[in-house]
Order: sequence, then structure tokens, then C-alpha cells
Amino acid sequence: MELLFDMSEYYNRLKKVKDSMEEHGLDVLLVSNPSNINYLSGYDAYSFYVVQALIVIKDQDQPYWIGRRQDANGAKLTTWLEDDHIYYYTDDYLHSTTKHPMDVIAHVLKQLRQDRRRIGLEMGSYYFSAIAYETLKGWLPDATFVNTTNLVSYVRMIKSARELQYMRHAARNAELAMQTGVDSIKTGVSENEVVANIYQAQMKGAGGIDGDYPSIVPLLLSGVKTSSPHLTWDGATFQGNEIITLELAGVHKRYHSPLARTIKLGKPSDRERRLSDALHDAMDAALSAVKPGEMCGDIAMAWTEAIKKYGFDKYDRLGYSVGLSYPPNWSEHTASIRQNNQTVLQPNMVFHLIPGLWEEDCGLEFSETFVVTEDGCETLADYPRELIVKEDVKGAPSQR
Amino acid sequence: MELLFDMSEYYNRLKKVKDSMEEHGLDVLLVSNPSNINYLSGYDAYSFYVVQALIVIKDQDQPYWIGRRQDANGAKLTTWLEDDHIYYYTDDYLHSTTKHPMDVIAHVLKQLRQDRRRIGLEMGSYYFSAIAYETLKGWLPDATFVNTTNLVSYVRMIKSARELQYMRHAARNAELAMQTGVDSIKTGVSENEVVANIYQAQMKGAGGIDGDYPSIVPLLLSGVKTSSPHLTWDGATFQGNEIITLELAGVHKRYHSPLARTIKLGKPSDRERRLSDALHDAMDAALSAVKPGEMCGDIAMAWTEAIKKYGFDKYDRLGYSVGLSYPPNWSEHTASIRQNNQTVLQPNMVFHLIPGLWEEDCGLEFSETFVVTEDGCETLADYPRELIVKEDVKGAPSQR
Repeated sequence: MELLFDMSEYYNRLKKVKDSMEEHGLDVLLVSNPSNINYLSGYDAYSFYVVQALIVIKDQDQPYWIGRRQDANGAKLTTWLEDDHIYYYTDDYLHSTTKHPMDVIAHVLKQLRQDRRRIGLEMGSYYFSAIAYETLKGWLPDATFVNTTNLVSYVRMIKSARELQYMRHAARNAELAMQTGVDSIKTGVSENEVVANIYQAQMKGAGGIDGDYPSIVPLLLSGVKTSSPHLTWDGATFQGNEIITLELAGVHKRYHSPLARTIKLGKPSDRERRLSDALHDAMDAALSAVKPGEMCGDIAMAWTEAIKKYGFDKYDRLGYSVGLSYPPNWSEHTASIRQNNQTVLQPNMVFHLIPGLWEEDCGLEFSETFVVTEDGCETLADYPRELIVKEDVKGAPSQR
Repeated sequence: MELLFDMSEYYNRLKKVKDSMEEHGLDVLLVSNPSNINYLSGYDAYSFYVVQALIVIKDQDQPYWIGRRQDANGAKLTTWLEDDHIYYYTDDYLHSTTKHPMDVIAHVLKQLRQDRRRIGLEMGSYYFSAIAYETLKGWLPDATFVNTTNLVSYVRMIKSARELQYMRHAARNAELAMQTGVDSIKTGVSENEVVANIYQAQMKGAGGIDGDYPSIVPLLLSGVKTSSPHLTWDGATFQGNEIITLELAGVHKRYHSPLARTIKLGKPSDRERRLSDALHDAMDAALSAVKPGEMCGDIAMAWTEAIKKYGFDKYDRLGYSVGLSYPPNWSEHTASIRQNNQTVLQPNMVFHLIPGLWEEDCGLEFSETFVVTEDGCETLADYPRELIVKEDVKGAPSQR
């Protein structure tokens, strides 16, 4: 199978990671986060639900991949690693009460004579559990472990031209999926039918851009459920006269471009208009604050100032960096757009800015995914940034 | 919102978990696995990508839910817990370099005077990371921690009548999704288009059974990729004359009924026929070995004996228990169908039996989800258990 990036790009990524390892005084990095494994090796499979690792050694050119035996063929097919850098454990290590895949990973580290060195671990990764850590520590008493959960993720924050191309393609899929959702929402139609159409659009993709699975399911919420942004759909049908929020991502080659909008099925109330106007103006203010050299906290401050004019007050997190990801989340878990965050914006960083205003029984949100440019920012998706009003609830969508 | 089960069922589940806690000598259980949180409280949202916990205390009637502030409304809407049993942490604990949500959970345990007791932890859960463990330990030096990753999951193994009803509904969705996939596979059609249609069918559901998101994406593999069962689709088009494996699940109310089949686009080769015949006979042999009182290992042995007649030899894991689940996996991580597994089969346990035969450049698999009955087993999906041959590659599917 073909690699998605030139070898020079993989070497460049590995060099940056090794530079960061040197800064952190690391000899070895044990990578567990599947996005980081993919970033460095190209490995791409839905196999991260079992223990996997990529071992990066500071004085070796090529990392080592270790996973389940039946996935080793996939590592040969999707990575740039030579076959002798691919190790596996057998199925008896899986969900066993007496064995753990980390037994094998520890053994490989010993075999590679890395068991007395300073080893970075992604201790906050979903895919490096407490028991994995305890098992590894037990086998390698002479190693020194350092928590470096976000070392690779910080390198990932600045995107290459090819990565941005995949993200722009993903944005085309996001536009299609959003339009499909808006078109599908009608009185008498069930939530799951709308989600069915959205999924179809996400995977089919726009104009030949093959869609990939999103790290988060489409979040379609209506009525009282809009007050809790991570509830999921069921078989309830739209009744008319409700507020509906929809957050989804277009995805291409594991790169995500998230997009959220709010739809009113029926005539908006004054309160809904006011929430929408506040969000609209504050989004403009926030995007205007984006510039290389400014900080993530500055974006949050511009947003908070703007909603104050409408009498709102909110200090929750407004956004986060995005790019390559696997379930269960598309955030890179590095910089957050929120008060006091001092991450300095640099060209080719990409963020999903998703401010919402949630009251006890109703919530509105809309979002943009933007790339930091030389002098400001560029939003990836081209979709009307406003409350989408479908007054003719059984007919075609109309925008305010 | 309506609970999916009667209160008596939730009380019964909690009682069984407390009985098991007593056997393990636990005062407190800190539940992190979202399937277990749902099982005990009803909580259902796509919010498990942030730290969440359910605290079960042996001498208290109601557990405590703790999650992110913006998800607390969802806990009020979807659980049977009273509002004063719902705690939250604010967004400044999220992806912070100085704070961790476990700070707040430790604080709540102190407030509830549980910080000097024996506390069970799901140390092998995807959603209880190494850093979460270290943080908790740091705050609670007087607690005794015990790894009880599968305590709740073992209780979940035996399904109630209502759970089986949801799983039978899920099986209808699996049949529809499988048929949609089979119908969509044609020469010149791309993999992602087929997956798009499968997703649509999964969510739309069969005959009004609303579909829910699967814990694993549809695994559609063709040609050389069938040698590695967890690779995912891309934009490649079917060329004709290839073997295609498809593993998917129908899902309803978070309950999964997985199903896998192999399709030949074109005329099967002798080798493919032989692999298919071996799998077919071995599946019959394995299902015939299912009976209360027998062990999981007996099923594996029956399968292995059957393929030996065809000259094959394989000792990988053949299956696992299934039911309620969240991404990234639908296995319950308890009993495995494999050599020497001594889990005794009991009525109303449900397993996904998915044996495959993978050679270097080609693989075949088909699977069944079955419930153990009083005297044998019942397969949930009704779908022809054989190699599906589409010889007229541009026309309608025909079965051998």
C-alpha cells in the first residue's frame, strides 16, 4: 500500500520528536496514542483497542512497532518500517488474567538493551492504562520513567502542506455532511434517520474525496437535550418548533475538520435570536483575534468581551487544536482556547473553535475549524455562519 | 428522559455488584468503564473521552456520578440518580498541565469519608489512564487500592430478558446492514461508498428499530488487506475477482449484535472454497458444542478439531462475550472463546464467535452472535452462513 506522505516528511517528524526527546532528556519514547503512532510510522488500523506501541530510540534511525500478531501484517502494509522492526505478541496475552501485552513490550525493550534508560511514557493516553504502567514498571526496575503524554502531540500541532491539504479535503466532507443533516431535519423524521444520512455523507464524501470515520459520532441534539452537548440521538421524531444543534466532522485520511451549527425548526424565539446574535458576533471577534504571535488566551478574551455586550458570562473552554486523530476524541489534547492559555499561535496550527451558550433547558452553538495563517486565519469550511432557520418545517431549508 | 430498564433491574444490578464487592473485600468501587457506568446508572453520552467516574459505596443505596460540568445535565437527564448524587469538575481541569479531573474525584472521595477504605479500581479500562491512577494515589495515601477491572463486566455477562430483547433488535439491524453491504459491493464501486451505505443502514435500522453507533467501525477488507483484519476502507474501487470480508454490528440502545461474512466478487478459487468449507463446518461444530455447564475452551476445541480435518491448525482467540458497549471495542473483555478458557457457560450469556482463517495474502471469516440457552444456543442474526458469491459482479447478489 502507498504511504500517505513522502518519506522526507516522516523523517522530518521523527527528527522533531527526537529533538524534543533530547530537550526532555529522554533516551527512549514509548508511544501509545494511535494518532502519534500513525504520525511517526504511517500505521493505520482500527486495532488500537488492544495494546500497541511504537518504540522510538534516540540513537536509532527506525522505530519499532509492537502489536497483536494478527495486526502485524497491517503494520507491514501501512508503515514505512522494515519487517525486522515489527514485533508482535500472541493472542494468549489478550484479556488474560495472568498475562499482559506489556510483558512482551518490556521483553522487547530488554532485548533492545533499553531497559536501563530514561523512557518517556504517554501516561495520559487512553491507550496506556494504569495496569499497563504497573506491568511495565514491574518488568523494568532499572529504567527511569518520565510522563511525556503530549510530546509527539505538540510536534503534531504545526501542520505540513500535505496535512493541510487533507484537512481542506476533510472540510469539503464536513460541508456535505452538514448540508445533508440540515436537509434531512424535518417534522416527523426521527433523529436516527437524520444521523443515518449524515454518516452516509461523511463516508461517501464530497466530489470523490473518500470519507473516513470520525473520532466522535455526529452529535445531534434537540429540545431539552441541547442543554447537554454530548448526549446522542435516539428514535424520537422532530415535532417542529425546536432548537437542534449538530456537531460533526468531515474526515479524510484520519484528518478531521469539525463543524457545528444550530438549526431552528420553526420560527426562532427572541431569546434564541439573542443567543444566536451573541454567538455570531463573538465568533467574529474571536476569529479577528487570531494572529501569529498572539496567544490562545487572547482569542478566549476577545470572545468573552464580545458576549458580555449581550449580558452573557462564560469561561468554559472554547476550543482546541485538531488534526489527525482516532476515537474517542478528535482534540489533540495540547493547546486549549481558554482564559490564560499562553500557547503562542504559529502559522499552520489548526484549531476547532466551538463556543456554545447553554442555558438550563436550551443550548446553541456554532463552530469553525481554522488554520493560523501568516497574518490571521483561514476557516476551512465554507458554510453560512448563522442560526439556520427552517420555518417551512416540511420543505426545503431556508437561511435567515 | 425515560430509563431503558425498570428500576428493579438497576437495583438488581447494583446488588450483584455489591455482592461481588463483598467477595473481593471492597468498601468502594470506582467505576471508569463507560459501559459499566451506563449499566449501573443509566448514564449514556459520548462524553467518556473526558474523565468520568461512578462511585459505588457498599453501605450506600445510590452511587455518585462525577464528570465534566457541561455533562452533568446529561447525567440528570439519563440516570436514575438524584441530583445531589451528581458532582462535576470545571473545564480548567481538562487537558491542563497543572490540574487533573482525578483531583476532584479524590476530593469527593474524601468528602464522602471514603479515603481510608479499600477501593476497587478498573485499572485496565481505556478510561482510567496511568496518570489518573498516579494522581488518585497521590491524593489518597491512606486508601488501599485493588485492581478490579472486570468486576462489573462479569456481572454484565448474564443478560436479562430486556437486554436480550435489545440484542435481538440489534440483530435485525445487523442483518439489514450486512445485506446493504452485500448489495452495494460491485465492480467499480469504491470501498468508502459501500461503507457509507452500511453506516446509513446501521443507524436507520430495520423496521423502526433505531440504530445506535457501533463501538467498532465496519471492517470492510478486500484483496491483500483481508490478511490483516483491522485495516479500514479507503477510496479504492472493487476490481472484480476479489475476496471481501465484512465485519459489522447492528446496535440498539448501546447493545451490539456483531456479524461477519465473506463475499467473493467473482468465481471462488478452489483454495477459497476449501477455506470456506472448513470455516462453515467448524462453525457448525463450535455452535454444537455450546451448552450450559460446558466451558468456553470446549467450544474452541470443537472448532480446532473440525478445521484439522481440512489440514488447518489455528489457536488464536475465536470469540468473546458481548452486549452493552462503547468505543473503542464491543468485547466485554471477560470470557474468551479459546483453548483452555475455563469459563463455564450459563444461560443468557452472549458471545460473538468470529473464527477466521488468514493466510499470508488472503483471509476468510464468518461469525455468529449467540445466546446460551437452557440446552444449547440460539444465534441472534438470521443470515446465510456461507461464502457469499457475487459472480455477476455488476448485478444482484446470488448465494451459493
